[in-house]
Amino acid sequence: MTAPIGVFDSGIGGLSVLRELLRLMPDESYIYLGDSARVPYGTKSAETVRLFAGQCAQFLLDQGVQLIVVACNTASAVALETIRAAVDVPVIGMIEPAARAALQSTRSGQIGVIGTRGTVSSGAYPAVIQALNGHAPAPAVHSFACPLFVPLVEEGWIDHPATRLVAQDYLDHLFAHGAAAGSPDIDTLVLGCTHYPLLKPLLHELLPSVHLIDCGEHAAHVARDILCHSAPPSSNAAPNVRFYLTDIPPAFVSIAERFLGFSVGGVERADIDHLVLVDKMMG
Amino acid sequence: MTAPIGVFDSGIGGLSVLRELLRLMPDESYIYLGDSARVPYGTKSAETVRLFAGQCAQFLLDQGVQLIVVACNTASAVALETIRAAVDVPVIGMIEPAARAALQSTRSGQIGVIGTRGTVSSGAYPAVIQALNGHAPAPAVHSFACPLFVPLVEEGWIDHPATRLVAQDYLDHLFAHGAAAGSPDIDTLVLGCTHYPLLKPLLHELLPSVHLIDCGEHAAHVARDILCHSAPPSSNAAPNVRFYLTDIPPAFVSIAERFLGFSVGGVERADIDHLVLVDKMMG
Repeated sequence: MTAPIGVFDSGIGGLSVLRELLRLMPDESYIYLGDSARVPYGTKSAETVRLFAGQCAQFLLDQGVQLIVVACNTASAVALETIRAAVDVPVIGMIEPAARAALQSTRSGQIGVIGTRGTVSSGAYPAVIQALNGHAPAPAVHSFACPLFVPLVEEGWIDHPATRLVAQDYLDHLFAHGAAAGSPDIDTLVLGCTHYPLLKPLLHELLPSVHLIDCGEHAAHVARDILCHSAPPSSNAAPNVRFYLTDIPPAFVSIAERFLGFSVGGVERADIDHLVLVDKMMG
Repeated sequence: MTAPIGVFDSGIGGLSVLRELLRLMPDESYIYLGDSARVPYGTKSAETVRLFAGQCAQFLLDQGVQLIVVACNTASAVALETIRAAVDVPVIGMIEPAARAALQSTRSGQIGVIGTRGTVSSGAYPAVIQALNGHAPAPAVHSFACPLFVPLVEEGWIDHPATRLVAQDYLDHLFAHGAAAGSPDIDTLVLGCTHYPLLKPLLHELLPSVHLIDCGEHAAHVARDILCHSAPPSSNAAPNVRFYLTDIPPAFVSIAERFLGFSVGGVERADIDHLVLVDKMMG
């Protein structure tokens, strides 16, 4: 029996990443940790997010995971290198796989990125996209924070008229930013927050000619490559997932099923705020 | 020099309460604590909110406050009695002053309450309203959770068309709930969340004949009565407030000014998650 894959997020958004992992590798076992007592990370300072993300990673290490997926864009943006430097298992974040996919997708050289304030203000996507691009002509990256998308998704208002107005307002700002530079249109949009894949149908409708990049989907492919899964997944495996939350909010089960598409059984409470990521991080 | 008044909230919403306190008692000194590292409380379990609120109260006690205002409806709903039992200074919550004002205001006997999921599902407002009402004919209390109002206010979309749609949707549900009982109309609406006073102009416009109850305003009157302030406030005092946050998010200063109407100077970081509210709470 192989060790489980550990997945953590600030709350429930990472379940959209877990869903992609299960789609590609349904025979693996998983431990999902949501830091719901301290959600959201997207509005918090980088220092605080690094502390919290380190505690999440340590909790998963204590469970003996073989690989950690940081299924939270904010934590990936500010804490990934800290975690990588401190642990001995592979650590996959959300930014690099999505940045690589965006580079492969764009023809106009204009890439849009939407996410939380924390992810956008970190500048992580433009930095990683430019670094991966190397010496090729540099794409332009236009970022915009969409803080209302998370609560709208959690409210279940996936196609409410208000959600449509909010999306139109945000996208108008994003595209105006691109147009002001007198450049061609954005043709690729990174959904830089794990809640946003639930808005794909609406975003597809508002932006029919733009390629939407789902970070969870691309991160799952990287995980599969690292674990050398070559066999096609068996189709009839029941998901083997243990769910831990730092707080168990009343609405968790119903929202989780919306993200995962299957019923979540038991959820355990994890007490993590005393943890310290292995000594190297403290140096 | 008298001891300061302590005010705490899960984040910045309590600033609308501080504003009312400053309006009534501008000569007092204040300590404001926002637990921004763990905001929001409204989606968390009662057990977790009690722990966090106890840590906030202990921090304020350690600063020598003479009175604690729990400027958060969720914490007031689930943690007030725990805190009162554990400390030796007066503790004022948001629920009772607003419930009393709603009882005095209603003519139709139909009271609406809007708040976070945590406040609404606690049932605290209906319980306190019925308890205060005693033997008079019982008013009907109709509650509805409006979780999108907080992020909309924090985004500054006080009068955005999307906010109007969201408000209309929520209020339609609330009033349909009242009407289904074949009863007269709701004539009094408790704004049971400290963010909601910023939406008063919009709510007034949508509900011109409904009396809106601002919990911070009524809590400030209770605080003034307890402290026996009878002198009219001097009008030219500069606010004497020390601000503490458990995390200092980048947008704090601009959002705080929107709530307070004056510029926030320095903000200090408070480290509170190791605190334990005095021993009595542990028994």
